[in-house]
Amino acid sequence: MRIIRFQGDSGQTHHGIETQGQQAELVEFDPTGTFKLISRTARIVKRLAPIEPTNIYCIGLNYRAHAQETGAAIPEQPVVFMKPTTAVANPGDPILIPRCCTHGDEVDYEVELAVVIGKVGRNIPEEQALDYVMGYTVANDVSARRWQKHSGGGQWIRGKSFDSFCPLGPVLVTRDEIPDPQSLSLSTTLNGSVMQSSNTSDMIFTVARLIAFISMDTTLLPNTLILTGTPQGVGVARKPPVFLKPGDTVKVEIDKIGAITSNVEQG
Amino acid sequence: MRIIRFQGDSGQTHHGIETQGQQAELVEFDPTGTFKLISRTARIVKRLAPIEPTNIYCIGLNYRAHAQETGAAIPEQPVVFMKPTTAVANPGDPILIPRCCTHGDEVDYEVELAVVIGKVGRNIPEEQALDYVMGYTVANDVSARRWQKHSGGGQWIRGKSFDSFCPLGPVLVTRDEIPDPQSLSLSTTLNGSVMQSSNTSDMIFTVARLIAFISMDTTLLPNTLILTGTPQGVGVARKPPVFLKPGDTVKVEIDKIGAITSNVEQG
Repeated sequence: MRIIRFQGDSGQTHHGIETQGQQAELVEFDPTGTFKLISRTARIVKRLAPIEPTNIYCIGLNYRAHAQETGAAIPEQPVVFMKPTTAVANPGDPILIPRCCTHGDEVDYEVELAVVIGKVGRNIPEEQALDYVMGYTVANDVSARRWQKHSGGGQWIRGKSFDSFCPLGPVLVTRDEIPDPQSLSLSTTLNGSVMQSSNTSDMIFTVARLIAFISMDTTLLPNTLILTGTPQGVGVARKPPVFLKPGDTVKVEIDKIGAITSNVEQG
Repeated sequence: MRIIRFQGDSGQTHHGIETQGQQAELVEFDPTGTFKLISRTARIVKRLAPIEPTNIYCIGLNYRAHAQETGAAIPEQPVVFMKPTTAVANPGDPILIPRCCTHGDEVDYEVELAVVIGKVGRNIPEEQALDYVMGYTVANDVSARRWQKHSGGGQWIRGKSFDSFCPLGPVLVTRDEIPDPQSLSLSTTLNGSVMQSSNTSDMIFTVARLIAFISMDTTLLPNTLILTGTPQGVGVARKPPVFLKPGDTVKVEIDKIGAITSNVEQG
Protein backbone atom coordinates (compact mmCIF):
# COMPACT_ATOMS: atom_id res chain seq x y z
CA MET A 1 0.00 0.00 0.00
CA ARG A 2 0.96 3.62 -0.52
CA ILE A 3 -0.31 5.50 2.53
CA ILE A 4 -0.69 9.24 2.88
CA ARG A 5 -1.65 11.25 5.94
CA PHE A 6 -3.74 14.37 5.53
CA GLN A 7 -6.27 16.73 7.03
CA GLY A 8 -9.81 16.30 5.76
CA ASP A 9 -12.67 18.76 5.54
CA SER A 10 -13.41 18.59 9.24
CA GLY A 11 -9.81 19.38 10.13
CA GLN A 12 -9.45 15.81 11.34
CA THR A 13 -6.29 13.87 10.49
CA HIS A 14 -6.60 10.67 8.44
CA HIS A 15 -4.43 7.99 6.90
CA GLY A 16 -5.57 6.93 3.45
CA ILE A 17 -4.80 5.77 -0.06
CA GLU A 18 -5.09 8.52 -2.63
CA THR A 19 -7.59 7.88 -5.41
CA GLN A 20 -8.58 10.67 -7.79
CA GLY A 21 -9.65 14.30 -7.46
CA GLN A 22 -8.02 14.97 -4.10
CA GLN A 23 -9.87 12.05 -2.52
CA ALA A 24 -8.55 9.18 -0.44
CA GLU A 25 -9.87 5.85 0.78
CA LEU A 26 -9.23 5.76 4.51
CA VAL A 27 -7.12 3.13 6.24
CA GLU A 28 -6.50 2.28 9.87
CA PHE A 29 -3.29 0.99 11.35
CA ASP A 30 -3.68 -2.34 13.06
CA PRO A 31 -1.52 -2.88 16.17
CA THR A 32 -0.26 -6.11 14.58
CA GLY A 33 1.59 -3.94 12.12
CA THR A 34 -0.60 -3.69 9.04
CA PHE A 35 -2.98 -1.18 7.50
CA LYS A 36 -6.52 -2.07 6.46
CA LEU A 37 -9.12 -0.24 4.40
CA ILE A 38 -12.17 0.88 6.39
CA SER A 39 -14.60 1.61 3.51
CA ARG A 40 -14.72 5.37 3.97
CA THR A 41 -13.37 8.20 1.88
CA ALA A 42 -12.40 11.79 2.65
CA ARG A 43 -11.23 14.83 0.75
CA ILE A 44 -7.55 15.71 0.98
CA VAL A 45 -7.41 19.30 2.25
CA LYS A 46 -3.80 19.43 3.43
CA ARG A 47 -1.12 16.77 3.02
CA LEU A 48 0.90 15.86 6.09
CA ALA A 49 4.08 13.90 6.67
CA PRO A 50 2.96 10.25 6.55
CA ILE A 51 3.69 9.65 10.24
CA GLU A 52 4.21 11.56 13.48
CA PRO A 53 7.53 10.16 14.69
CA THR A 54 7.99 9.11 18.31
CA ASN A 55 11.78 9.51 18.02
CA ILE A 56 13.98 10.28 15.02
CA TYR A 57 17.31 8.47 14.76
CA CYS A 58 19.71 9.45 12.01
CA ILE A 59 22.82 7.75 10.68
CA GLY A 60 25.91 9.64 9.59
CA LEU A 61 28.41 8.58 6.94
CA ASN A 62 26.50 5.49 5.81
CA TYR A 63 27.34 5.59 2.08
CA ARG A 64 30.86 4.70 1.01
CA ALA A 65 31.20 7.45 -1.59
CA HIS A 66 29.80 10.06 0.83
CA ALA A 67 32.25 9.09 3.59
CA GLN A 68 35.00 9.50 0.99
CA GLU A 69 33.84 12.94 -0.20
CA THR A 70 33.81 14.26 3.37
CA GLY A 71 37.29 12.89 4.05
CA ALA A 72 36.00 10.66 6.86
CA ALA A 73 37.11 7.07 7.42
CA ILE A 74 34.57 4.31 6.71
CA PRO A 75 32.90 3.88 10.13
CA GLU A 76 33.34 0.55 11.89
CA GLN A 77 29.91 0.91 13.49
CA PRO A 78 26.91 3.07 12.61
CA VAL A 79 27.26 6.71 13.71
CA VAL A 80 23.95 7.57 15.39
CA PHE A 81 22.53 11.01 16.03
CA MET A 82 18.99 12.36 16.43
CA LYS A 83 16.64 15.08 15.32
CA PRO A 84 13.75 16.40 17.44
CA THR A 85 10.29 15.49 16.20
CA THR A 86 9.58 19.19 15.73
CA ALA A 87 11.93 19.25 12.73
CA VAL A 88 9.42 17.39 10.52
CA ALA A 89 8.04 19.36 7.56
CA ASN A 90 4.98 18.26 5.63
CA PRO A 91 4.85 17.87 1.86
CA GLY A 92 4.41 21.37 0.50
CA ASP A 93 5.93 23.06 3.54
CA PRO A 94 9.00 25.18 2.86
CA ILE A 95 12.51 24.63 4.18
CA LEU A 96 13.19 27.66 6.39
CA ILE A 97 16.68 29.14 6.51
CA PRO A 98 17.20 29.70 10.24
CA ARG A 99 17.60 33.29 11.38
CA CYS A 100 20.53 32.12 13.54
CA CYS A 101 22.55 31.18 10.44
CA THR A 102 24.25 34.55 10.56
CA HIS A 103 27.61 33.63 9.01
CA GLY A 104 26.44 33.31 5.41
CA ASP A 105 25.02 30.35 3.52
CA GLU A 106 25.39 26.98 5.23
CA VAL A 107 22.11 25.06 4.82
CA ASP A 108 22.52 21.80 2.88
CA TYR A 109 20.29 19.01 1.50
CA GLU A 110 20.62 15.25 2.14
CA VAL A 111 18.31 12.72 0.46
CA GLU A 112 17.71 9.74 2.75
CA LEU A 113 15.71 6.54 2.80
CA ALA A 114 13.51 6.85 5.91
CA VAL A 115 12.46 3.67 7.70
CA VAL A 116 9.31 3.64 9.85
CA ILE A 117 9.15 1.06 12.64
CA GLY A 118 5.76 -0.66 12.93
CA LYS A 119 5.85 -2.59 16.19
CA VAL A 120 7.66 -2.47 19.51
CA GLY A 121 11.07 -4.12 19.45
CA ARG A 122 14.26 -4.35 21.52
CA ASN A 123 17.43 -6.33 20.79
CA ILE A 124 16.01 -7.14 17.36
CA PRO A 125 18.10 -9.75 15.51
CA GLU A 126 19.36 -8.50 12.15
CA GLU A 127 17.76 -11.44 10.33
CA GLN A 128 14.29 -10.51 11.70
CA ALA A 129 14.75 -6.75 11.55
CA LEU A 130 12.74 -6.07 8.38
CA ASP A 131 9.69 -7.71 10.05
CA TYR A 132 9.62 -4.68 12.37
CA VAL A 133 9.37 -2.21 9.48
CA MET A 134 5.96 -0.61 8.82
CA GLY A 135 7.20 0.92 5.62
CA TYR A 136 9.50 3.38 3.93
CA THR A 137 9.33 7.04 2.99
CA VAL A 138 11.65 9.81 1.79
CA ALA A 139 13.40 12.34 4.03
CA ASN A 140 15.58 15.36 3.46
CA ASP A 141 18.04 15.51 6.37
CA VAL A 142 18.52 19.27 6.05
CA SER A 143 21.71 20.37 7.80
CA ALA A 144 23.21 23.74 8.78
CA ARG A 145 26.87 22.88 8.28
CA ARG A 146 28.45 25.61 10.37
CA TRP A 147 26.20 24.81 13.32
CA GLN A 148 26.79 21.09 12.76
CA LYS A 149 30.55 21.20 12.55
CA HIS A 150 31.85 24.32 14.25
CA SER A 151 29.29 25.60 16.76
CA GLY A 152 28.04 22.41 18.41
CA GLY A 153 31.10 21.36 20.37
CA GLY A 154 31.43 18.36 18.03
CA GLN A 155 27.81 17.23 18.46
CA TRP A 156 25.79 17.48 15.25
CA ILE A 157 22.35 17.93 16.81
CA ARG A 158 22.18 21.74 16.92
CA GLY A 159 22.83 21.98 13.16
CA LYS A 160 20.28 19.25 12.39
CA SER A 161 17.37 20.25 14.60
CA PHE A 162 15.91 23.51 13.33
CA ASP A 163 12.22 23.67 12.38
CA SER A 164 11.58 22.35 8.84
CA PHE A 165 14.89 20.46 8.74
CA CYS A 166 13.17 17.11 8.10
CA PRO A 167 10.85 17.26 5.06
CA LEU A 168 9.14 13.85 5.09
CA GLY A 169 6.89 12.07 2.61
CA PRO A 170 4.92 12.19 0.48
CA VAL A 171 3.84 8.57 1.07
CA LEU A 172 4.61 5.66 3.33
CA VAL A 173 5.13 2.59 1.16
CA THR A 174 4.45 -0.56 3.16
CA ARG A 175 7.29 -3.03 3.43
CA ASP A 176 5.61 -5.71 1.30
CA GLU A 177 6.09 -3.45 -1.73
CA ILE A 178 9.83 -3.03 -1.07
CA PRO A 179 11.14 -6.49 -0.23
CA ASP A 180 14.75 -5.36 -0.78
CA PRO A 181 15.48 -1.86 0.60
CA GLN A 182 19.11 -2.17 -0.59
CA SER A 183 18.43 -1.69 -4.28
CA LEU A 184 16.67 1.69 -4.51
CA SER A 185 17.92 4.59 -6.63
CA LEU A 186 17.82 7.93 -4.79
CA SER A 187 18.58 11.47 -5.87
CA THR A 188 18.47 15.16 -5.05
CA THR A 189 17.62 17.78 -7.66
CA LEU A 190 18.27 21.46 -6.90
CA ASN A 191 16.61 24.00 -9.21
CA GLY A 192 16.48 21.30 -11.90
CA SER A 193 20.12 20.14 -11.57
CA VAL A 194 20.86 16.66 -10.24
CA MET A 195 23.12 17.02 -7.17
CA GLN A 196 22.96 13.54 -5.63
CA SER A 197 22.38 10.31 -7.55
CA SER A 198 23.14 6.96 -5.98
CA ASN A 199 21.60 3.70 -4.87
CA THR A 200 20.93 2.26 -1.41
CA SER A 201 23.20 -0.63 -2.44
CA ASP A 202 26.11 1.72 -1.53
CA MET A 203 25.06 1.77 2.14
CA ILE A 204 27.79 0.62 4.50
CA PHE A 205 25.27 -0.68 7.07
CA THR A 206 22.02 -2.11 5.68
CA VAL A 207 18.57 -1.16 6.97
CA ALA A 208 18.40 -4.50 8.81
CA ARG A 209 21.80 -3.94 10.42
CA LEU A 210 20.82 -0.41 11.50
CA ILE A 211 17.61 -1.62 13.17
CA ALA A 212 19.57 -4.33 15.00
CA PHE A 213 22.21 -1.82 16.08
CA ILE A 214 19.88 0.94 17.28
CA SER A 215 17.63 -1.53 19.12
CA MET A 216 20.49 -2.92 21.21
CA ASP A 217 19.21 -2.55 24.79
CA THR A 218 16.94 0.20 23.40
CA THR A 219 13.20 -0.02 22.83
CA LEU A 220 11.98 1.06 19.40
CA LEU A 221 8.35 2.22 19.52
CA PRO A 222 5.93 2.18 16.59
CA ASN A 223 6.50 5.28 14.44
CA THR A 224 10.18 5.47 15.33
CA LEU A 225 11.82 7.00 12.28
CA ILE A 226 15.29 6.01 11.12
CA LEU A 227 17.03 8.18 8.52
CA THR A 228 19.59 5.88 6.98
CA GLY A 229 22.24 8.32 5.76
CA THR A 230 22.88 10.20 2.55
CA PRO A 231 24.98 9.40 -0.53
CA GLN A 232 27.69 11.56 -2.10
CA GLY A 233 26.96 14.91 -3.71
CA VAL A 234 26.06 17.04 -0.68
CA GLY A 235 26.52 20.77 -1.17
CA VAL A 236 29.22 21.25 1.44
CA ALA A 237 31.56 18.76 -0.28
CA ARG A 238 31.26 20.42 -3.71
CA LYS A 239 33.92 22.70 -5.10
CA PRO A 240 32.79 25.40 -4.82
CA PRO A 241 30.26 24.51 -2.08
CA VAL A 242 26.55 24.83 -2.90
CA PHE A 243 24.12 25.87 -0.17
CA LEU A 244 20.36 26.42 -0.15
CA LYS A 245 19.07 29.98 -0.58
CA PRO A 246 15.61 31.53 -0.43
CA GLY A 247 13.92 30.95 -3.79
CA ASP A 248 15.54 27.56 -4.40
CA THR A 249 13.51 24.42 -5.03
CA VAL A 250 14.97 21.14 -3.80
CA LYS A 251 13.53 17.71 -4.65
CA VAL A 252 14.60 14.48 -2.94
CA GLU A 253 13.39 11.31 -4.62
CA ILE A 254 13.60 7.56 -4.10
CA ASP A 255 12.69 4.83 -6.58
CA LYS A 256 9.36 3.05 -5.78
CA ILE A 257 8.47 5.63 -3.11
CA GLY A 258 8.27 9.10 -4.64
CA ALA A 259 9.60 12.62 -4.30
CA ILE A 260 9.25 15.41 -1.78
CA THR A 261 9.81 18.89 -3.12
CA SER A 262 10.47 21.87 -0.87
CA ASN A 263 10.74 25.55 -1.64
CA VAL A 264 13.38 27.35 0.37
CA GLU A 265 12.36 30.46 2.29
CA GLN A 266 13.98 32.77 4.81
CA GLY A 267 12.86 31.73 8.31
CA MET B 1 2.90 22.71 43.68
CA ARG B 2 4.75 19.41 43.87
CA ILE B 3 3.20 17.23 41.17
CA ILE B 4 3.58 13.47 40.82
CA ARG B 5 2.36 11.22 38.01
CA PHE B 6 1.16 7.74 38.85
CA GLN B 7 -1.07 4.84 37.94
CA GLY B 8 -4.21 4.53 40.02
CA ASP B 9 -6.33 1.49 40.87
CA SER B 10 -7.96 1.41 37.47
CA GLY B 11 -4.59 1.40 35.70
CA GLN B 12 -5.33 4.94 34.55
CA THR B 13 -2.56 7.54 34.67
CA HIS B 14 -3.05 10.65 36.81
CA HIS B 15 -1.21 13.78 37.86
CA GLY B 16 -1.67 14.66 41.51
CA ILE B 17 -0.34 16.05 44.76
CA GLU B 18 0.61 13.37 47.24
CA THR B 19 -1.23 13.52 50.56
CA GLN B 20 -1.01 10.64 53.06
CA GLY B 21 -1.31 6.86 52.89
CA GLN B 22 -0.44 6.48 49.21
CA GLN B 23 -3.20 8.87 48.19
CA ALA B 24 -3.07 11.91 45.95
CA GLU B 25 -5.33 14.84 45.18
CA LEU B 26 -5.67 14.96 41.41
CA VAL B 27 -4.66 17.95 39.29
CA GLU B 28 -5.16 18.81 35.65
CA PHE B 29 -2.77 20.74 33.48
CA ASP B 30 -4.28 23.85 32.01
CA PRO B 31 -3.14 24.79 28.49
CA THR B 32 -2.26 28.25 29.82
CA GLY B 33 0.59 26.62 31.68
CA THR B 34 -0.69 25.96 35.19
CA PHE B 35 -2.00 23.04 37.20
CA LYS B 36 -5.29 23.15 39.10
CA LEU B 37 -6.86 20.85 41.69
CA ILE B 38 -9.96 19.05 40.45
CA SER B 39 -11.41 17.88 43.80
CA ARG B 40 -10.83 14.16 43.27
CA THR B 41 -8.41 11.75 44.90
CA ALA B 42 -6.88 8.44 43.81
CA ARG B 43 -4.65 5.78 45.30
CA ILE B 44 -1.03 5.73 44.14
CA VAL B 45 -0.43 2.22 42.77
CA LYS B 46 2.74 2.85 40.75
CA ARG B 47 4.77 6.04 40.58
CA LEU B 48 5.75 7.27 37.13
CA ALA B 49 8.19 9.86 35.85
CA PRO B 50 6.35 13.18 36.34
CA ILE B 51 6.02 13.84 32.60
CA GLU B 52 6.13 12.00 29.27
CA PRO B 53 8.68 14.06 27.33
CA THR B 54 8.00 15.08 23.74
CA ASN B 55 11.74 15.53 23.08
CA ILE B 56 14.72 15.35 25.44
CA TYR B 57 17.53 17.85 24.94
CA CYS B 58 20.69 17.47 26.99
CA ILE B 59 23.56 19.87 27.57
CA GLY B 60 27.17 18.72 27.83
CA LEU B 61 29.95 20.36 29.82
CA ASN B 62 27.75 22.99 31.47
CA TYR B 63 29.47 23.17 34.87
CA ARG B 64 32.86 24.85 35.07
CA ALA B 65 34.42 22.30 37.44
CA HIS B 66 33.07 19.38 35.35
CA ALA B 67 34.51 20.79 32.12
CA GLN B 68 37.83 21.07 33.95
CA GLU B 69 37.77 17.49 35.27
CA THR B 70 37.17 16.10 31.79
CA GLY B 71 40.02 18.19 30.34
CA ALA B 72 37.62 20.01 27.98
CA ALA B 73 37.73 23.73 27.28
CA ILE B 74 34.90 25.86 28.66
CA PRO B 75 32.40 25.83 25.75
CA GLU B 76 31.66 29.13 24.05
CA GLN B 77 28.11 28.01 23.31
CA PRO B 78 25.95 25.26 24.84
CA VAL B 79 26.81 21.75 23.58
CA VAL B 80 23.46 20.15 22.73
CA PHE B 81 22.71 16.46 22.36
CA MET B 82 19.56 14.36 22.78
CA LYS B 83 18.20 11.23 24.38
CA PRO B 84 15.25 9.26 22.97
CA THR B 85 12.07 9.42 25.05
CA THR B 86 12.34 5.66 25.57
CA ALA B 87 15.31 6.20 27.91
CA VAL B 88 13.06 7.53 30.70
CA ALA B 89 12.91 5.38 33.85
CA ASN B 90 10.24 5.84 36.50
CA PRO B 91 10.95 6.31 40.20
CA GLY B 92 11.64 2.82 41.53
CA ASP B 93 12.69 1.43 38.17
CA PRO B 94 16.24 0.04 38.03
CA ILE B 95 19.09 1.31 35.90
CA LEU B 96 19.87 -1.56 33.52
CA ILE B 97 23.46 -2.25 32.51
CA PRO B 98 23.16 -2.77 28.75
CA ARG B 99 24.05 -6.22 27.44
CA CYS B 100 26.03 -4.51 24.68
CA CYS B 101 28.49 -3.05 27.23
CA THR B 102 30.80 -5.98 26.60
CA HIS B 103 34.14 -4.29 27.31
CA GLY B 104 33.87 -4.14 31.10
CA ASP B 105 32.33 -1.52 33.37
CA GLU B 106 31.54 1.82 31.71
CA VAL B 107 28.12 2.98 32.96
CA ASP B 108 28.25 6.30 34.83
CA TYR B 109 25.88 8.57 36.78
CA GLU B 110 25.22 12.29 36.19
CA VAL B 111 22.89 14.30 38.44
CA GLU B 112 21.12 17.02 36.45
CA LEU B 113 18.50 19.70 36.98
CA ALA B 114 15.73 18.83 34.49
CA VAL B 115 13.61 21.65 33.09
CA VAL B 116 10.11 20.93 31.76
CA ILE B 117 8.71 23.33 29.16
CA GLY B 118 5.08 24.26 29.75
CA LYS B 119 3.94 26.08 26.63
CA VAL B 120 4.87 26.28 22.97
CA GLY B 121 7.74 28.62 22.24
CA ARG B 122 10.22 29.51 19.48
CA ASN B 123 12.96 32.15 19.47
CA ILE B 124 12.27 32.72 23.16
CA PRO B 125 14.11 35.77 24.53
CA GLU B 126 16.39 34.93 27.44
CA GLU B 127 14.70 37.48 29.67
CA GLN B 128 11.28 35.79 29.16
CA ALA B 129 12.56 32.21 29.08
CA LEU B 130 11.58 31.18 32.62
CA ASP B 131 7.95 32.08 31.80
CA TYR B 132 7.98 29.05 29.48
CA VAL B 133 8.97 26.66 32.27
CA MET B 134 6.26 24.38 33.69
CA GLY B 135 8.56 23.22 36.44
CA TYR B 136 11.68 21.38 37.48
CA THR B 137 12.55 17.80 38.32
CA VAL B 138 15.63 15.63 38.85
CA ALA B 139 17.28 13.49 36.18
CA ASN B 140 20.16 11.05 36.13
CA ASP B 141 21.80 11.36 32.70
CA VAL B 142 23.16 7.81 32.78
CA SER B 143 25.99 7.39 30.28
CA ALA B 144 27.90 4.40 28.88
CA ARG B 145 31.30 6.05 28.51
CA ARG B 146 32.88 3.67 26.02
CA TRP B 147 29.85 3.89 23.73
CA GLN B 148 29.73 7.66 24.23
CA LYS B 149 33.36 8.38 23.52
CA HIS B 150 34.85 5.57 21.46
CA SER B 151 32.10 3.70 19.60
CA GLY B 152 29.83 6.48 18.41
CA GLY B 153 32.03 8.12 15.80
CA GLY B 154 32.26 11.20 18.06
CA GLN B 155 28.48 11.48 18.55
CA TRP B 156 27.40 10.89 22.16
CA ILE B 157 23.85 9.67 21.46
CA ARG B 158 24.50 5.92 21.29
CA GLY B 159 26.08 5.92 24.77
CA LYS B 160 23.27 8.05 26.21
CA SER B 161 20.20 6.37 24.74
CA PHE B 162 19.84 2.89 26.24
CA ASP B 163 16.63 1.98 28.05
CA SER B 164 16.59 3.21 31.68
CA PHE B 165 19.34 5.79 31.02
CA CYS B 166 17.12 8.69 32.15
CA PRO B 167 15.71 8.11 35.65
CA LEU B 168 13.34 11.06 36.14
CA GLY B 169 11.42 12.37 39.14
CA PRO B 170 10.11 11.88 41.69
CA VAL B 171 8.15 15.16 41.47
CA LEU B 172 7.70 18.11 39.17
CA VAL B 173 8.04 21.28 41.24
CA THR B 174 6.22 24.14 39.55
CA ARG B 175 8.30 27.17 38.69
CA ASP B 176 6.65 29.49 41.23
CA GLU B 177 8.32 27.44 43.98
CA ILE B 178 11.80 27.85 42.43
CA PRO B 179 12.08 31.50 41.39
CA ASP B 180 15.88 31.18 41.02
CA PRO B 181 17.00 27.90 39.40
CA GLN B 182 20.64 29.01 39.67
CA SER B 183 21.01 28.50 43.42
CA LEU B 184 20.14 24.83 43.96
CA SER B 185 22.46 22.33 45.64
CA LEU B 186 22.65 19.00 43.79
CA SER B 187 24.42 15.74 44.55
CA THR B 188 24.92 12.09 43.67
CA THR B 189 25.32 9.43 46.35
CA LEU B 190 26.56 5.95 45.34
CA ASN B 191 26.10 3.19 47.91
CA GLY B 192 26.05 5.85 50.63
CA SER B 193 29.15 7.77 49.46
CA VAL B 194 28.76 11.28 48.07
CA MET B 195 30.22 11.36 44.55
CA GLN B 196 28.94 14.68 43.18
CA SER B 197 28.16 17.75 45.28
CA SER B 198 27.75 21.13 43.67
CA ASN B 199 25.32 23.96 43.06
CA THR B 200 23.52 25.11 39.91
CA SER B 201 25.31 28.45 40.44
CA ASP B 202 28.35 26.77 38.78
CA MET B 203 26.46 26.40 35.47
CA ILE B 204 28.22 28.05 32.54
CA PHE B 205 24.92 28.71 30.71
CA THR B 206 21.88 29.44 32.88
CA VAL B 207 18.51 27.73 32.44
CA ALA B 208 17.18 30.89 30.80
CA ARG B 209 20.11 31.04 28.39
CA LEU B 210 19.69 27.35 27.48
CA ILE B 211 16.00 27.80 26.68
CA ALA B 212 16.81 30.81 24.51
CA PHE B 213 19.60 28.90 22.75
CA ILE B 214 17.71 25.67 22.07
CA SER B 215 14.59 27.53 20.90
CA MET B 216 16.48 29.48 18.21
CA ASP B 217 14.49 28.72 15.03
CA THR B 218 13.26 25.60 16.86
CA THR B 219 9.81 25.00 18.34
CA LEU B 220 9.74 23.77 21.91
CA LEU B 221 6.55 21.85 22.66
CA PRO B 222 4.95 21.44 26.09
CA ASN B 223 6.69 18.59 27.94
CA THR B 224 9.99 19.19 26.19
CA LEU B 225 12.62 18.14 28.71
CA ILE B 226 15.98 19.90 29.01
CA LEU B 227 18.72 18.23 31.06
CA THR B 228 21.01 21.08 32.00
CA GLY B 229 24.34 19.30 32.46
CA THR B 230 26.14 17.69 35.38
CA PRO B 231 28.71 19.02 37.87
CA GLN B 232 32.12 17.54 38.68
CA GLY B 233 32.56 14.16 40.34
CA VAL B 234 31.43 11.80 37.55
CA GLY B 235 32.81 8.28 37.79
CA VAL B 236 34.83 8.32 34.59
CA ALA B 237 36.89 11.31 35.77
CA ARG B 238 37.82 9.72 39.12
CA LYS B 239 41.17 8.12 39.76
CA PRO B 240 40.62 5.24 39.67
CA PRO B 241 37.37 5.47 37.68
CA VAL B 242 34.14 4.36 39.37
CA PHE B 243 31.40 2.75 37.28
CA LEU B 244 27.97 1.40 38.16
CA LYS B 245 27.63 -2.35 38.79
CA PRO B 246 24.67 -4.63 39.44
CA GLY B 247 23.76 -4.35 43.12
CA ASP B 248 24.71 -0.67 43.41
CA THR B 249 22.24 1.97 44.61
CA VAL B 250 22.61 5.46 43.16
CA LYS B 251 20.70 8.51 44.42
CA VAL B 252 20.59 11.85 42.60
CA GLU B 253 19.17 14.72 44.61
CA ILE B 254 18.42 18.42 44.16
CA ASP B 255 17.55 20.94 46.86
CA LYS B 256 13.84 21.93 46.94
CA ILE B 257 12.92 19.15 44.49
CA GLY B 258 13.86 15.77 45.92
CA ALA B 259 15.80 12.62 45.17
CA ILE B 260 15.46 9.76 42.73
CA THR B 261 17.09 6.51 43.81
CA SER B 262 17.81 3.68 41.37
CA ASN B 263 19.04 0.17 41.97
CA VAL B 264 21.45 -1.04 39.31
CA GLU B 265 20.70 -4.38 37.61
CA GLN B 266 22.12 -6.33 34.72
CA GLY B 267 19.98 -5.67 31.63
